[in-house]
Order: sequence, then structure tokens, then C-alpha cells
Amino acid sequence: MVDELLRYASVIAERVNPIIDEVMRGEERKLYNASLHLLKAGGKRLRPLLTVLSARLFGLDEGLALYPAASVELLHNFTLIHDDIMDRDEFRRGVPTVHKIYGEAMAILAGDLLFAKSYEAMLRLWGRVPDNLLVKALRELTWAAVTVAEGQSLDMEFGSRDDVRMEEYLTMIFKKTAALFKASAYIGSVIAGANDDDLVRICEFAKSVGIAFQIRDDELGLIGDEKVLGKPVFSDLREGKKTLLIIYALNNVSSSEREVILKYLGKSNASEDDLRRVAKIVVDSGALEFSNRVAEDYLKKGLTALDGVNAKDLEAKKLLMEFALFLTKRLY
Amino acid sequence: MVDELLRYASVIAERVNPIIDEVMRGEERKLYNASLHLLKAGGKRLRPLLTVLSARLFGLDEGLALYPAASVELLHNFTLIHDDIMDRDEFRRGVPTVHKIYGEAMAILAGDLLFAKSYEAMLRLWGRVPDNLLVKALRELTWAAVTVAEGQSLDMEFGSRDDVRMEEYLTMIFKKTAALFKASAYIGSVIAGANDDDLVRICEFAKSVGIAFQIRDDELGLIGDEKVLGKPVFSDLREGKKTLLIIYALNNVSSSEREVILKYLGKSNASEDDLRRVAKIVVDSGALEFSNRVAEDYLKKGLTALDGVNAKDLEAKKLLMEFALFLTKRLY
Repeated sequence: MVDELLRYASVIAERVNPIIDEVMRGEERKLYNASLHLLKAGGKRLRPLLTVLSARLFGLDEGLALYPAASVELLHNFTLIHDDIMDRDEFRRGVPTVHKIYGEAMAILAGDLLFAKSYEAMLRLWGRVPDNLLVKALRELTWAAVTVAEGQSLDMEFGSRDDVRMEEYLTMIFKKTAALFKASAYIGSVIAGANDDDLVRICEFAKSVGIAFQIRDDELGLIGDEKVLGKPVFSDLREGKKTLLIIYALNNVSSSEREVILKYLGKSNASEDDLRRVAKIVVDSGALEFSNRVAEDYLKKGLTALDGVNAKDLEAKKLLMEFALFLTKRLY
Repeated sequence: MVDELLRYASVIAERVNPIIDEVMRGEERKLYNASLHLLKAGGKRLRPLLTVLSARLFGLDEGLALYPAASVELLHNFTLIHDDIMDRDEFRRGVPTVHKIYGEAMAILAGDLLFAKSYEAMLRLWGRVPDNLLVKALRELTWAAVTVAEGQSLDMEFGSRDDVRMEEYLTMIFKKTAALFKASAYIGSVIAGANDDDLVRICEFAKSVGIAFQIRDDELGLIGDEKVLGKPVFSDLREGKKTLLIIYALNNVSSSEREVILKYLGKSNASEDDLRRVAKIVVDSGALEFSNRVAEDYLKKGLTALDGVNAKDLEAKKLLMEFALFLTKRLY
């Protein structure tokens, strides 16, 4: 099952990458190299896959979905480059971040270029799909760009707060992560001519899977190892990220344990031993089991929504189901 | 003549500002405040004026042009906020820059939000103009965003070079400044239904005026005073900007004078006296007269192009002529 999905994912990645290269051509070598650094370092092209599968679901040829697929990937990489500057992250995908190599000024500009190129990639659909559908795709892309910025703003604000509520965390990851998942699915579906009811369903699917994916990603940040993460362990703890795990633990441990968590959380100079102690308190609190339950609930909600979609391509529907399971699979 | 233009400019500014406020609504207060800081600090709304006058030129009602007018102003302010971070500028429009007040992380995000909101403003035309014209406007906005980023990249690269040629400078200011002038005029014209020949003419007009405007702006950077500039005098010299004035002077002064220029140019810690000495060498070289001639040539080229436009609204045509003269008027 998963093998089939992974095979298809790599086929799509190999078709999307040349489109990205085609759009990312320009004379200013340093700027374009900086913009391509992260894209060339890897990445799973999850959002393009979601766009292409959503398009196929409603009967669109895979080939036409490659431009919007490149578009959402470019938008995603723009946000990664800027987030890494804001969060002072030095590694991603196992390589130094753009600002570590090219400096902050060039990294800001590289992100800006990717943002603009994300629209350029989408606009390559011009003349290939009806204008009214292209406009709908562009409206969604814009909604996602606004929403992701708001999500990052919440994430930064939460860093300095100890009283973040679970609903606030869920709103934040909806905005920061799930919004672009939703947009990726919507855009593929809408250019394929999906009707309004099916659009609601596929968006519900992508949004729920996006939230579940981010919850799992936050779990990995606590228990994953450096090789899998592509960045140092405990970065999230050092940055004081208020993940579901931390929120749960802060509300469910003894006051002395709570003090230990708050003492080291968000301290960039905390030692690995101290952070290991924090991680142990969080894990022992039952936070992972809780977090898993929440992720499972979102996954179920997403799969139910997908199930209701009137699909033209049943293989695409099956692959989307596998996509959801793969992204949110139990990690330990 | 100029009075009439300035009166109209303030009418348009007062109509565009509420549209900007309408688009810039969101719950994340700090992010939205940071994004609005520069917009609230003033600004002449030159690009919106160009969009509205171009739309009127081809018979579109002013009211419909306000959304694209807001769009180009939002895009412009996004680039200013990010440029100020990259150039380490601390003042603009007489107030501290966004990153000085909100920090670099929030300033990066504020720029990103304005970028996205620039598309949102344009997309508010949805249902008000035909989709095919809206798509053309969005393609132009995207071209401008890509081009402005490339221009900023050239500007930064030139800072560390002493051998920048005049054509390179002109390419850079075309990309960094004139591209958005051109886009502002194109967008207003295209949604008004201008034909291809007239679009070429109005773009030639806006592009030429944009280049002349930037040449004058660079002159102001050398001879203007702090109150007019809204930022410290000699910032351009401190940042090592390769303006037409500097390029001319480097090619036309004695080798000892050249050495003085190169000794202090781009040195952030140079004293005001040293920079005054550099400025005097540049002025005495005849650079201003040369720069004026180049600006006049572009102005003439622009006015000739405007003259050839088949205008539906002759008052708009006259105001555009005044706009060009006002922006590029002799400064001393």
C-alpha cells in the first residue's frame, strides 16, 4: 500500500521539479541560487502530491496540475526560508539554512522571490484552464499566504507565553500548516472542475490531515532523532514552541515538574541534558498518548470527509487515503 | 498646474487609504500593526495615483481603480519594509523603520503579509471586472514582484563593486523602481480595457517617468536635507549605493579624488565631514548636470509616449503629464 504511494510520490516529484526549475530561471545568479538552495536540498513535495491527487480525483489530467503543484511548493519553501530566519534555525533538511549560507539579507530576498514565483507558476495555467477557475485558484493561494503569515505570528507570540490554550494551539497549526494543505487540495480540485459540495469535502479532508500531520511533526520534534529531523534535536524546546505536548504537560504535571519545564523551555543556551530532562517529564506525563488521540481524531475526520467525495478516479482516492495514513502514522 | 495635481493626489490618497484599511483587517494585532506602521506614517501614494489616472485615461470609473491602486501601494510598502531590513536603514518617512520598532522577525513577517494582501486587494476586483482582465492585472503584479526582487538583488550586489557601468545602473533602477511604476499604469489601463497599442504607450510613459524619478531621488540623496528625506543625509553614500552620480564621478574625477570617494563610500562608520567631502567631489565633477540631462531625456521620452495615447479622458491625460513633471522636476 504505502509502497505504491511512495512510488507515485517520487514520480510526481520528478515531474514537478523541472517545472520549478523552469519557473525559477533568472539572470541574478546569487539570488536564484539562494532561492533554490532549500528546494534542491530535498523535501518530500507533499503539497504538490496533494494538489495532483486532488486534481486527478475530479478527472483532471496530472500534467495540468503540475503548475499549481509547483506553485504551492514554491509558496511553502518561501515560508520555510523566512521562518528559519525568524526562528534562528541553522539546519533544515540536513543542510545549513539559506540565511546561514547566504546571509539574512539575501535569504529575505530569496523568500520574497519564491513568493512571487509561486504566483508565476500558478499563472502559467493561463490559457490552459478557464480564467474563472484560475482566479479561484489564485484567491485560494492568496488566502493561504495571508493565513500562513498569521499562523507564524501566533507561533512567535506563543513562544513568550506560558498559558497557551489547546484551542489556540489548534488554531495556530491550522493557520501555519493546515491552511496550505487545504489550499493545495482546493486548487487541484477547483481547476479540475469539482462542484461546491465536493470542494467542501476535499478541503475538510486536507485541513484535518494537515492538522494531524503537524501534531505528529511536533511529536517527532520531541522524540525524533537528528538524522530523521534534518536539524538538531530539541530545537522546538529551545525555541519555546508551545506544542500540544507542552500544553498538555504544563496542565498535567506536578508544580515542581512544571517549574523544571518552564525553567528550560525557550532557553536557547539550555544544555542537551537539561532538555532531555524536560522531554522525559513531558513524555512521562502521558502527553504523547494524548497527542496521538487528538491526531487520530483529526485523521478519522479527514478520512470520513474523503470517503464522501464523488470521485472520478478511484485510484487517486485510494492514494489520498494512503497519503493521509502515511503522513499521520504512529511514530513509535 | 501642480496645485491641481496635488489636490487630486490627496483626494485619491483619501479614497485609497480606507481600502487599504479594509484589506488590512485581521485578528493578529501586533502583526497587522507592524504591517500598517509605514503606511500610516505617510507616503505620497504615487503608485495608486498612477493606477487611478491610467484607468481614467481609458474611461474607467475612478472607484473601480481603487482596489488595484491599493494593491500596488501594498506591494510597494512590502518592498520598503524588507529593503529597510536588508539595508539596515533606521528611518523612513521621518519615523523609525518597522524592524527598529517591532524587531526583524516581525518586520519580515509584516512585509510578507503586505505582499499577500497586495494580491488580496487586487482580487477584490473579482466580479467587478471580467476575469480575463483581472488575470492580466495579476500577471503584471507578479511580473513586478519578481522584477523588483531582482532589482534589489542587483542593488545589493552593486554595493560591493566599484566598476558598475551606467547601463547596469539603469537596468537596476528599471527593475527596482520603474517596474512597479510600469505595472501600476498597466494595471489601471488594462482593467479599463485599453488596447494593446495604448498599453505599450502608457507602459513606456510610466517606465520612463519611473527611471527619471529614481535618478532625481538619487540626486536628493546627495543634496537633499534630512527633513525632506525623512532619513539621515548621506545614507546612500554610507551604504555604498552606486548611483548615476557616483558612477559618473568615479569615471570623471582625478585618481586622487577617486581614491577619496572609494575610501569613504560604503563605510557605515564614515563621519559626516568625510561624506560631505565625498559629496563635494561628486558635485564638483559635474555629476548633477549629467544626471539631470539623463533624467530629462527619460522624461521627454515618457511624455512623447503619453502624447501618443488615444485618451478617453483628457483631464486624466493632463494630470498624468503634470504627474511626470512633478516627479522629475529640477531640484535645485
